[in-house]
Amino acid sequence: MALKTFARACEQIIKGVDTTLSKISHSQVEVMINMMLWARFRRILVIGVGRSGLIGRAFAMRLMHLDFDVYVMGETITPAIGKGDLIVAISGSGTTKLAVTAAAIGKEVGAKIIAITSHPNSDLGKIADHVVQIRGRTKIAKERDYFLRQLTGVHEPLAPLGTIFELSTMVFFDSLIAELIQRLGKSEGELRRKHATIE
Amino acid sequence: MALKTFARACEQIIKGVDTTLSKISHSQVEVMINMMLWARFRRILVIGVGRSGLIGRAFAMRLMHLDFDVYVMGETITPAIGKGDLIVAISGSGTTKLAVTAAAIGKEVGAKIIAITSHPNSDLGKIADHVVQIRGRTKIAKERDYFLRQLTGVHEPLAPLGTIFELSTMVFFDSLIAELIQRLGKSEGELRRKHATIE
Amino acid sequence: MALKTFARACEQIIKGVDTTLSKISHSQVEVMINMMLWARFRRILVIGVGRSGLIGRAFAMRLMHLDFDVYVMGETITPAIGKGDLIVAISGSGTTKLAVTAAAIGKEVGAKIIAITSHPNSDLGKIADHVVQIRGRTKIAKERDYFLRQLTGVHEPLAPLGTIFELSTMVFFDSLIAELIQRLGKSEGELRRKHATIE
Amino acid sequence: MALKTFARACEQIIKGVDTTLSKISHSQVEVMINMMLWARFRRILVIGVGRSGLIGRAFAMRLMHLDFDVYVMGETITPAIGKGDLIVAISGSGTTKLAVTAAAIGKEVGAKIIAITSHPNSDLGKIADHVVQIRGRTKIAKERDYFLRQLTGVHEPLAPLGTIFELSTMVFFDSLIAELIQRLGKSEGELRRKHATIE
Repeated sequence: MALKTFARACEQIIKGVDTTLSKISHSQVEVMINMMLWARFRRILVIGVGRSGLIGRAFAMRLMHLDFDVYVMGETITPAIGKGDLIVAISGSGTTKLAVTAAAIGKEVGAKIIAITSHPNSDLGKIADHVVQIRGRTKIAKERDYFLRQLTGVHEPLAPLGTIFELSTMVFFDSLIAELIQRLGKSEGELRRKHATIE
Repeated sequence: MALKTFARACEQIIKGVDTTLSKISHSQVEVMINMMLWARFRRILVIGVGRSGLIGRAFAMRLMHLDFDVYVMGETITPAIGKGDLIVAISGSGTTKLAVTAAAIGKEVGAKIIAITSHPNSDLGKIADHVVQIRGRTKIAKERDYFLRQLTGVHEPLAPLGTIFELSTMVFFDSLIAELIQRLGKSEGELRRKHATIE
Repeated sequence: MALKTFARACEQIIKGVDTTLSKISHSQVEVMINMMLWARFRRILVIGVGRSGLIGRAFAMRLMHLDFDVYVMGETITPAIGKGDLIVAISGSGTTKLAVTAAAIGKEVGAKIIAITSHPNSDLGKIADHVVQIRGRTKIAKERDYFLRQLTGVHEPLAPLGTIFELSTMVFFDSLIAELIQRLGKSEGELRRKHATIE
Repeated sequence: MALKTFARACEQIIKGVDTTLSKISHSQVEVMINMMLWARFRRILVIGVGRSGLIGRAFAMRLMHLDFDVYVMGETITPAIGKGDLIVAISGSGTTKLAVTAAAIGKEVGAKIIAITSHPNSDLGKIADHVVQIRGRTKIAKERDYFLRQLTGVHEPLAPLGTIFELSTMVFFDSLIAELIQRLGKSEGELRRKHATIE
């Protein structure tokens, strides 16, 4: 009987992530990839708050290994972003105020915005030039959550708050990296060479 | 044919994570839960470098929502750790030098160490009072990687470097949180109340 | 002749900081101390972006050593802030958008705001319940900068951007800590005991 | 009588910083500047823990504004450091274990090390290729502290722990930036253009 909740949570999370990933629109992904390939000789800024910010950083690390000129909002050496640069903003609800404010400033200075969110019609979704919708339960009001569950068919009472969104986004990003590696013709050996030496 | 690599990577990552999770020893998890429940009235310090550090922070956030007195190595308000406190150290290879050094200092001052690693016989594993082994390809030498793949049965050429370890560890932590919530009798409503207001 | 610029910059910065500190209103400081002593049994959240954020973190570390329940915006374990909690927001210009947005959210949920800024009439200054004005050149438009220099009597062409504000604020905070230690009757030995063990 | 401690602390800190700066060896600074100018087309990694780490980040921000390819240990996009790269490691006591470990790894892979420390004969000082000694009270044992005070002539009972070292180092770095700007012929306008847009 021990660890029943643990075991069921594992199962539900993986199933939830699997379902969520299967619903990602490939045409949305294709547009994002093209925007990122365009941005190879520009700066990319990753924006996210809380756990979404951590997922964004994990993505930024991989992009750095692929030689993208990538930065993370809030870190020390993040330079000016301007016209033609690319912002990848992550927010499950699409309403996280600091992320929305940051994306709006980025838009004002001429950067292109990709939003990764469950809610294309949210504030963040509306600001964005392009949205990749990743379903999954997010930190919005209970009623809307309930609605969302009906829409997505994902029931995950054991996955608290934004878990499914965050994990699905992380798998999404890592798969995107695999696609980018293939398109850019990078080998894993090259990745390894760029990996931080001091840790 | 577009996004073939992307689609296969998604599939392989999820399968890899699923396989990895199914191989986690429940008795190792049970011991970890008991150590964490003991540590409820002590400090918990999460140690990790690179992507393992990001996964550790995502775990720490949830523990904070559950009212654990938890800190992250390298952040601003991390206080002194001492006798009876608990360290959760994450390193796929178990050899990440800064993580091992930090864990060793923690051990010296009397803290208990839980290592989350693919390699129980690594430096980190040997220092630890308890190991939860999470398989998955890690940043070790190619030959050993190959070996590991044979042992785990996980083949993930599209999942670069430590991806499977990191994602599996994140699902593991979120499932552990579900189990802790159930054992502590916390409702999701309480979690929500503690969630950072300003973001 | 070598290091002429270096030597003059040292001199000008120290003189600039000295002048700036001498112009801080002691009654503004007294109010801030009282607000902080009130906040001893509440949460304190430190908000700042860029170099102001780093100064804020250095302050937060000391407050943590003094047993304040203090957090830094953007770090992992920052919990919900609410009614009766205290926010210390740092922005030389008082217009840093993310800091202003964060302070505004904090105000909405009922926290008290102390602004540390050169510009009491800025957006941040207007939101704040209390302002401690620390002069010094800030990142505002050139013309206003020029004006500011006339007002403050501080000429520091060798101190780029917000240097004088940031350094003055750091000395201000460290002096505030000395005053708090004295009022709370803490000895330096106690500080040392709380100092992070693992570094 | 109010704020007597505050006022005296301000005064003592500024006097302490002034004295400390006046004792910095200009030939040590000159060597550091030359090493940094050499490193302009290489990577620079800034290493520091606790408040020294914050000071290091403030320095890294300015270096980034000056177009140096600079990174901070522990942040997301820090890449591999190797032969010919430069490490600037900051530790008042020179014994901070994680900083020493990190510098040692850097040395192993062929990077040059500059140590900023009060103690040239410390572990960090011994590893370093070059030391800039910045006196000031540091977090070492009381007796040695006492000794140090005799040597430096700096008495700062109101400046807790490493305050004088940290503030002096910050003024030192900002003055170094002024010198670098002058040598590289950068105008402040260029700095401003590189300043982070989104904050």
